[in-house]
Amino acid sequence: MRQHNKTVPTGFRGDMANGFNPNDTSHLTADDLDHIARRQRLLGPAYRLFYRSPVEISRAKGVFLYDKHGNEYLDAYNNVASLGHSHPRVVHAIQDQLGTLCTHTRYMQNQLLDYAEMLIRTFGGELGRTGCAMFTCTGSEANDLALRVARFFTGKTGIIVTAEAYHGNSGAVAAISPSLGKKSTLDPYVRTVAAPDSYRLPVAEIGRRMAEDVTRQIADIERHGGGFAAFIADSAFSSDGLYVDPVDVLAPVAEVVRRAGGLFIADEVQSGFGRTGTHLWGHARHSVQPDIVTMGKPMGNGYPVAGVVLRPELVSEFGASMRYFNTFGGNSVAIAAAKAVLDTIIEEHLMQNASKIGSQILEGLNDLQKKYEFVGDVRGTGLYFGVELVKDRDLKIPDMDRALAVVNGLRDRRILISATGADAHILKIRPPLVFTSEHAGRLLEGIDQALAAV
Amino acid sequence: MRQHNKTVPTGFRGDMANGFNPNDTSHLTADDLDHIARRQRLLGPAYRLFYRSPVEISRAKGVFLYDKHGNEYLDAYNNVASLGHSHPRVVHAIQDQLGTLCTHTRYMQNQLLDYAEMLIRTFGGELGRTGCAMFTCTGSEANDLALRVARFFTGKTGIIVTAEAYHGNSGAVAAISPSLGKKSTLDPYVRTVAAPDSYRLPVAEIGRRMAEDVTRQIADIERHGGGFAAFIADSAFSSDGLYVDPVDVLAPVAEVVRRAGGLFIADEVQSGFGRTGTHLWGHARHSVQPDIVTMGKPMGNGYPVAGVVLRPELVSEFGASMRYFNTFGGNSVAIAAAKAVLDTIIEEHLMQNASKIGSQILEGLNDLQKKYEFVGDVRGTGLYFGVELVKDRDLKIPDMDRALAVVNGLRDRRILISATGADAHILKIRPPLVFTSEHAGRLLEGIDQALAAV
Repeated sequence: MRQHNKTVPTGFRGDMANGFNPNDTSHLTADDLDHIARRQRLLGPAYRLFYRSPVEISRAKGVFLYDKHGNEYLDAYNNVASLGHSHPRVVHAIQDQLGTLCTHTRYMQNQLLDYAEMLIRTFGGELGRTGCAMFTCTGSEANDLALRVARFFTGKTGIIVTAEAYHGNSGAVAAISPSLGKKSTLDPYVRTVAAPDSYRLPVAEIGRRMAEDVTRQIADIERHGGGFAAFIADSAFSSDGLYVDPVDVLAPVAEVVRRAGGLFIADEVQSGFGRTGTHLWGHARHSVQPDIVTMGKPMGNGYPVAGVVLRPELVSEFGASMRYFNTFGGNSVAIAAAKAVLDTIIEEHLMQNASKIGSQILEGLNDLQKKYEFVGDVRGTGLYFGVELVKDRDLKIPDMDRALAVVNGLRDRRILISATGADAHILKIRPPLVFTSEHAGRLLEGIDQALAAV
Repeated sequence: MRQHNKTVPTGFRGDMANGFNPNDTSHLTADDLDHIARRQRLLGPAYRLFYRSPVEISRAKGVFLYDKHGNEYLDAYNNVASLGHSHPRVVHAIQDQLGTLCTHTRYMQNQLLDYAEMLIRTFGGELGRTGCAMFTCTGSEANDLALRVARFFTGKTGIIVTAEAYHGNSGAVAAISPSLGKKSTLDPYVRTVAAPDSYRLPVAEIGRRMAEDVTRQIADIERHGGGFAAFIADSAFSSDGLYVDPVDVLAPVAEVVRRAGGLFIADEVQSGFGRTGTHLWGHARHSVQPDIVTMGKPMGNGYPVAGVVLRPELVSEFGASMRYFNTFGGNSVAIAAAKAVLDTIIEEHLMQNASKIGSQILEGLNDLQKKYEFVGDVRGTGLYFGVELVKDRDLKIPDMDRALAVVNGLRDRRILISATGADAHILKIRPPLVFTSEHAGRLLEGIDQALAAV
């Protein structure tokens, strides 16, 4: 069923499959072609643009992005501006703090501790009572730190991830991110397990199967001499294909991991901060207690702030014998931004909004599944959806080309989404938490039109 | 001469040696002790505070930090706020951009390209004409990316660093940072060479010796099968002990590195953006052409922005076969901040100011060396100084205890500096580029008093 790198023009999978194709530019304006050529020259070949017709963005407000001609784009994808673009409360918090103080964590600052306490208390169980927080700038840095801590604490190197996991862009986390493709070398001691593919596996067995897979891979790691350090997974399996249900999958895995002396790391960079509607953290839907939680993207609604919350004993030796200092991590402005975001999510009941508007969208997507034979599966929780496009409902063969066409068809209708999964055939829809019923209607109408057109 | 981990109470070396000691708190107020206990609980044991009496900072402006009682501290250390704290031009640039747009690099944005072009053009030679820029959030991420690119491009793994190098906090760069101490495991294919210690080595021979060292270590790497990928050094050897002269050291090293097929990476995270007074980039003082330049700390005057500038051919294959996406790296606000910083450095002639005020400080420090027998060596360029304290001028034995006392004596006089080097006996003085002659006088007077008191 897997057809890696076969049909994606740019040679990328997952979220990149909607990317601009430099061999398909005849539809672009001279201005756009100039910009793209200049960009290629100044940023080099590693930078990619979204969409067959890249979008030039000049300003953004709430759920809308605007190009230089004033055209309005409905943003149903950018998880970073999770409270909406230029959210006034966050903008003002940053603006105020900027004029007062922006410095690092080696001086005493009460706001840093106040936010750390507030953040830690959002977790259930022991972690929420006794956990400690460490701040970084990016989710990649948070996952990288989690790996360093896990390996240092256990004295082992083996890491288990899901088959199409993406945990970031640093050397260490890229080496545990199979979704980066075959040319990106994996760490010798990383092993993969199948994602909990609720569309293809017997749902009642997924948790048990995954735990068995993990057990097998732990044994394999031990057999190769690395020793097992940790299991890490995105709590919504975002890059595997967005498997948000069933929610009895991670607890049996965590049990197996603990029994083997490993740590369970919940990567909440995409699934955290209320995205899933019912819980602030995706792993809480699975009733699992992680040893380390990592977070990032929406944490500062655009300001670079990220972090980990973990059991303090995991860093007692790490902290005593090594220095870990992140120059910008948790600086005064980052903390002001992060606090404004968390305050807003709680006080404006954005999780509840995500749940409510999310239900409306899910219902609409389910209707579209009935309408279109090639919509094989619809998955979602809160404001996070995966819509799987297939060539054949019985055989469930991924239809990457159609997904690419739908994503770009929506872009032409000025609605922004993306696609994910190993075969990039799963529409990834992730609107801001402030989406209204009207926005949801506009999104669903656009998707309907785009599906009808392919 | 090396006494690693022997006399530093917290078990840290280098910049951490001035750290707060939890076993020495009888002089602190109940409020401070409460804060510290709370901090320990919420941030865990890996976080460190500056100074025997930690400073609580409430606001900052220009070259001054202020505590909650309104006490003024002269900042002669924080390189991040290189234009001075809350610099109005940078603050306004960020404030304005925040209200307009803060999004990522997968949409077309002219300001991103304008800044990339401006930045690239600050480099000499081929790099300035044809180089490309990639944006990250932190200097650690920039060095991590440089390593990934160097290893991918060369297909080799071996890296050569200086003996007390620090290149960041991610797993990959911590593994090439010997200054993190013996418990931080180094990569099997990293090798070290002695820093260009102008105080202990015959100055005329340093470049030749270093090139010979590098040659030997390349051979050793090859002998172990890893293959030689790159040499990386901070262009001011900041954590080795701040060896800013002589400046004929890196060119012969680069020649040896190139002959062996390796890349030369200039880490400008500390030495860049005009810090050294005569050149925007530290490596330019050495008349060397790096293959990759990494930068960070002062790039956004506090906003988390960092990056690399490199030869585009180094990423042509990396860029074609892998995705590298840094969610916040080079976002609209980061670029607005970075542009305001670079504009300010150039338009307000801050490099020239660093050179002028730097000369005044260097002269003053040289006078203090005459006055105090234990001031073994004074080094500096621009607004970047190392003052080496020794137990004996002839034997040049590092005096860590006295350096610790001077740093803390200055803190008690409300002047902020730190210490560096393997034995943490070198005062590290790094005032904002906007320092005036009056600030310089105040700094020198404070240092004189602190030296007299130990």
